[in-house]
Order: sequence, then C-alpha cells, then structure tokens
Amino acid sequence: MTDRPIELKPVGVVKTILSDDEVRESWHEGIDAEIEIFEQYAPALERIEGFSHLMVTFYLHETSAEQRQTLRARPKRYLRYGLKLEDLPLVGVFSLDSPHRPNPLGLTIVRLLSRRANTLTVGGLDAFNGTPVLDIKPYTPERCVSSFTLPDWFRLLQRHVEMPGSDPGHGA
Amino acid sequence: MTDRPIELKPVGVVKTILSDDEVRESWHEGIDAEIEIFEQYAPALERIEGFSHLMVTFYLHETSAEQRQTLRARPKRYLRYGLKLEDLPLVGVFSLDSPHRPNPLGLTIVRLLSRRANTLTVGGLDAFNGTPVLDIKPYTPERCVSSFTLPDWFRLLQRHVEMPGSDPGHGA
Repeated sequence: MTDRPIELKPVGVVKTILSDDEVRESWHEGIDAEIEIFEQYAPALERIEGFSHLMVTFYLHETSAEQRQTLRARPKRYLRYGLKLEDLPLVGVFSLDSPHRPNPLGLTIVRLLSRRANTLTVGGLDAFNGTPVLDIKPYTPERCVSSFTLPDWFRLLQRHVEMPGSDPGHGA
Repeated sequence: MTDRPIELKPVGVVKTILSDDEVRESWHEGIDAEIEIFEQYAPALERIEGFSHLMVTFYLHETSAEQRQTLRARPKRYLRYGLKLEDLPLVGVFSLDSPHRPNPLGLTIVRLLSRRANTLTVGGLDAFNGTPVLDIKPYTPERCVSSFTLPDWFRLLQRHVEMPGSDPGHGA
C-alpha cells in the first residue's frame, strides 16, 4: 500500500523571460521571476504579504525518466570552482541537491518581493520557465536551524566556493 | 500542459510505535522515529552520515479529498495556547503549515541521529506511522536564512507560544 503511486497537481507555474541556460548560469544567486498561482488557488495566498521568504516546492519537469533512475551522483556544480571530475566524490542523491533523483522535486527558499493578485514576484529562484509549482509554505522561525554540522566531504568542496583554485587534497 | 497531473512514488515510509494522537500531541518538539528507505533506493543514502539535519518531504496520506479543497484556514494549533477560534485569523493555506492544502505535502527539518543500512533514525519528526516519504535533501548552509520578516498576524500569534494567556488584542 505504501508504494502506490501518488498523484499531485500543479497549483501554479514559474514565469521568466530567461532561457534555461541563463537560469543554469545564475544557480548560485538565483533569478528574479514570477510565480503565477492558478486562479482557482488564489485564495490560498491570502495574508502571505509580510513573509519575507517562502519555501517553494517545484516539480522539475525537464528531468528525464533515465535521470530519475539516478541514485548516486557527483556534485558537478563544483566543476566551476576549478575542481576536476575525479576530485568529486560519488554521493547518494539524498545527500545532494541534484535534480536527478527518484522524485524530481525542487525546494527553494525565495525572497517574496511583491504580490499582485495571484502572481508573486520572487528573488533567488532556481527554476526554469514553465516549471510546475506544487506547494508554497512560509519561512517561519522553526525553519532556521542555527547549529548544524556537515560531512567532511561537503566542507572540503564548500571551501572551493570560498577559495577557488585551492587544492582539494590539502584543504583540511 | 502545465496542469497535467504529476505522478510521484514513495521512496520510503515513516515507522513509529506512537499512535496518531500521540504524534499530534508532540507536534511542537516532534518525535523520534525511523525512516525506512525502500531497499532499491538505499544507494541514494550514501555519505548522508555527517549531516546533522535533513529536510524530508512527505505525502500526508491521511488528508481527505475534502481537506485538499481547503484554500483558507485558521491556524488551530494556537488554540492550545489559550486563544479562542474567533481570535484566529482566516489565512490562505500557502501562508500556513496546515496539512489541509491542494497538494498535501509535509516538509520537516529533522535531526539525523543514526543510519543503519537503509533505515534512518531521526528526531523532530511530525509524521504519522506509515506516512510515505517522497524525498530527502541535506540541510546545508544556504537553507538557513538568518534575517527574515514575518507578518504582524503571525508575530501576534507567535507571542502566545512564548507567553501563553496574554490578550491577543493588546499584545502589540
């Protein structure tokens, strides 16, 4: 019973004039874009003004059936910080933010810039034009964990975002 | 095309000996429980040890078809802090964490206590026994927003969690 398929429905869609490549290039800081909530769900946005940040769940619709089979991957985003493919550890996709995963769900914390009727203008989004939106939740105090730890492999990679070009083997 | 139904599949299930009522009563601090990832997805957990916190997306399977029609609700959890139903504002469900929403997705930040093969023991969970798990992502630095704002209606309610019994009309 617990492995029956689950059916969800888009409640809105991402609108941006940027191309997919432009969105990819801005993954670190994200893009300003619109989230259009379909008119029948507009009442669900009431009183959302005043939250500076929202947590948006997307369906990453450009992920292929083959990419959904991915269970382990290398965090390739670090290639742009001077690391080589062989420097990147092979990691389970539940330990990564990769779009290639059994259920291609994206989860982004965006800044709510404004709302006009059923359209939200947001900042810090990393989703392509036309991406279906599944859910929106407010960013509230219990969403912020102030004290957390990270694995060594992650901290080693992260160091290259801060200091590009440093040697991955001798960074600790 | 963007409102075509979306099919997802459970990748695991929540296991707890606690009853649904016991889980409800502990909503604030959450429960210790197990997340069993189905064996075929076990490789997706590789190298997850070392993350102290995970973000888990659930399918809230006990939500009825009628409850999914809910677009506005009152944040009833504040009733236990001495507020009356008429003190609670009617709010869009995208401004709330209520399980009653168009797509009944739950999103919880849990503490990863241990991993044994394909079973994670976690703390701070707020899901019933048998809840299907859809996705797990690591809690990484960019998930923590240090500076955010909240609407007046939310801050007013929140004050009652900290100071139960204070008058909602004169709390500002």
